[in-house]
This record gives sequence, C-alpha cells and structure tokens, in this order.
Amino acid sequence: MTYCVGLKLDRGLLFAADTRTNAGVDNIATFKKLHTWEEPNERVITLLSAGNLAITQAVVSLLSEHITSVEDDRATLMTAKTMFQVARLVGSAVREVKEIDGEALATSAESFFVTFILGGQIRGEEPRMFQVYAAGNFIEVSEDTPFLQIGEHKYGKPILDRVTRSDMRLGEAAKLVLLSFDSTLRSNLSVGMPIDMLLYNTDTFSTERQVRIEQNDPYFRKLSQSWSDKLREAFGDIDEFEV
Amino acid sequence: MTYCVGLKLDRGLLFAADTRTNAGVDNIATFKKLHTWEEPNERVITLLSAGNLAITQAVVSLLSEHITSVEDDRATLMTAKTMFQVARLVGSAVREVKEIDGEALATSAESFFVTFILGGQIRGEEPRMFQVYAAGNFIEVSEDTPFLQIGEHKYGKPILDRVTRSDMRLGEAAKLVLLSFDSTLRSNLSVGMPIDMLLYNTDTFSTERQVRIEQNDPYFRKLSQSWSDKLREAFGDIDEFEV
Repeated sequence: MTYCVGLKLDRGLLFAADTRTNAGVDNIATFKKLHTWEEPNERVITLLSAGNLAITQAVVSLLSEHITSVEDDRATLMTAKTMFQVARLVGSAVREVKEIDGEALATSAESFFVTFILGGQIRGEEPRMFQVYAAGNFIEVSEDTPFLQIGEHKYGKPILDRVTRSDMRLGEAAKLVLLSFDSTLRSNLSVGMPIDMLLYNTDTFSTERQVRIEQNDPYFRKLSQSWSDKLREAFGDIDEFEV
Repeated sequence: MTYCVGLKLDRGLLFAADTRTNAGVDNIATFKKLHTWEEPNERVITLLSAGNLAITQAVVSLLSEHITSVEDDRATLMTAKTMFQVARLVGSAVREVKEIDGEALATSAESFFVTFILGGQIRGEEPRMFQVYAAGNFIEVSEDTPFLQIGEHKYGKPILDRVTRSDMRLGEAAKLVLLSFDSTLRSNLSVGMPIDMLLYNTDTFSTERQVRIEQNDPYFRKLSQSWSDKLREAFGDIDEFEV
C-alpha cells in the first residue's frame, strides 16, 4: 500500500508521500514515490504515485526518457505549455505502459492498478493539481475539495476534512498532512516512514523546500505526541453522554 | 455498509451500531443492527451485525426461534452457561444459515459476508465480548485491544486508538464512540443515522441504558461541532513545520 496527499492552497502546493513498498508483509522496502521535474524560473512538476511499483516506475521513466529523446518534436514535461497538457502526457505514459505490460499482467492475474497525484506550475499559469487514473484520464482539484489522497486514504481523511482551509500557510498545511500520516501509519503497516514532502510556494518555480522526514525526526515525534495529548485534553473538555 | 463498535471496559460494555442498509446508493433504508436478549438479574446478551442483511436477520431469527422451540434440549442463548457457549451458538447459527443459503448465494455471485460483535454477561462470569466471523469461528476481546469494530472501520479508528482507556466511565466511552461515528458518517454515505447505543454496567443484568440517537439529537450535534472547534484549536496550538 501507499499513502500520498496533495493540497492545493492559496499560497502554493503541498505534496507528501510515504516510501514503503511491499510484496507481502515479509518483503518490504523503501522507494521514493515523490518525483519532481524542474526548470528554474520556468516550471516545477511533481508526481506522487500509488499502485504497482513496476508500473509507476515505468511511467516515471517514460516521462523522463521522452524529455531527453530527440527523435521527434512531441511535447514533453519540459515543453508542455500548460499543466493540463502535462496531465495529458502523464495519462499517455500510463496508457503506453498499459499497452506494453497490461496483457501480461492480466494473464498473471495481476491488475493494472496505479494512481497519481500530479501538481505543479508553469510560468503564465497558476499552480494546478490533478489526479490521474489507471485509464490515463484525470480530474483537476477544485476549490470545494482542496486536497487529493491516493492509496490508504481512510484513516487520514477525518483530520483533513475537519482542518483543511485553502488559506493555510504551507508550514501549517505540512503540520496537518503529517498528522494525517501519523493516523495512517498507526493503523496500516504497509504505509511506512520516511515521508517525502515538498512545499511549493506559488511563483517560486523551485523545489528547494523538499524534505525527507525520517522515523526519528524530532519534529514528527513531538507532533505525534502532542497531538495525542491535545486530543485527549479536548476530549476531556466535552460533556459526557448521559442516558 | 455498516459501522458498529463494541468496547469492553472495566465498568461494563458499550455497543453502538448505525442503522443504514443499502442496496446501491438509490435504495437505502433503516434497519436495527443492535439486538438484545435479556433475562433480568441473570443475563444480558447483545449482538451487533454487519454484512448481508438477509443473512444477519436469518441468524438473529434462528437464535430467537431456538429459545422458544421446545423440540429438544439443546442449549440456547437463554440457557447457555457462559458467554463462550453463547459465542458458539452464534457461530452455529451462522453455519446453519450458510448451509441453507450459501450455495444459492454463491450461484448468484453473492458472497456469504457477515460479521458480528457479541457481548454480554451471564451471572457468575465477568462481562465478555467476541467477534464472530462468517465461518462461525470467533475471537474474544483482550486487554490489549479493548474495542472491536465491524463494517466501515477505518475512518473512526484513529480517535479510538488515541483515546480509548479501559478505565473510562461508560458515559465517557459513549462520547468517544459517537465521535468515532461522526468521523465515519462524514466520509461514508452508506453509514447513516440514527445510531443505536447500549451502555451496559457490570452486574446490572439490564438493558435499560439503551438509546437511539437521531439525526437532530442535540447532544450529538453539539458534540460534533465542539469537537471540530477543539480539534482546530488544538491544531493551532502546535508549532508549524519548518523547512
């Protein structure tokens, strides 16, 4: 399993992904699921992936290969004019991988399961965020629902539902997303530390606010502990049920 | 879907169940999923059910019919000497229904899906709580995990994980369980109000603390609102993430 979250805020975008990959409970490993492409002062593109690792890696590799391939003049992540075009490129790459591997996966009774959160900014546009499906089609984040989740999304959703606001600062949103991860990590062993996170401020066209949060990260440990304490305190402040 | 919770506490047992049944999103109805059998001053047995409604109703009906049937001297819910024996009776009833309906369900590509939370007290024993599976086998709650959930359990689990303590008062536990329901109701349409709840105090052998919480229940509405407020407040009190 996997847990990834993307937030589209007034001040920018926030991406977070766990790093656990597992084939059964006795075969776990750490793989990066947060991928970025960047052209300073011009564009930043981020992709979070959930699903079959072979498929997600193939999609990411294809997207990167197309950039350096000089064989034709098709659009790439680095030349697409809008994030909508980028989303279509990601969708096409998913379909390309499906064409190559889909049949063989089906005959091994493996499903072609993959989902992506795609976000970024290209100069001339506002930051945008999309969810790309296994069929290569996609939706864009709207104001009504400023966050996207892929993978094991249920444990971490209540806190996002209650606290997310579009006008949050990115550091505030990062705190929120880490709490959402904390709830998920406690309940699903197939979601695991470290967590990769990228805070993108609108119009910076830079990925410099990228960080990996390790198991023993002091901020994360303190956050987890004080959240539990405060939750219990808040709980104690509410009247008991009487019947 | 369904959401049911059972807590085994030092002072007694708490049961809660939603009442929504659905066959598709365009066919929803209210059915009671909390069932009780009682012999004053002697025994109280409670069963919460999740899964195919036809199956769970058949199991409950069988258990009730066996009590009044005079055809033989087999043990029933009202004569079993221990809660362990009661759990075996529930398991047997599940197997009996499977024998009757299982094959026909299989040929209609319907699975035999059902789970129960069973709890209660028989004079001479402490209160006990079990989870009974579709195969008719079961587990008993241990001190390490004082709560059981069946149905749509993920959204409401983080709050139970963080706050549950065996030494809670029942009214406190009822508040906790209602918060767990609130998180679930917000995210899964197939879990719906009203909520049936039973607070059982050890050695009372009575079901008098049973209540149905309707959509417009003032306590529930206030709880939901003040929890959201307090959560946001607690969230604001924690340092932001910095990178």
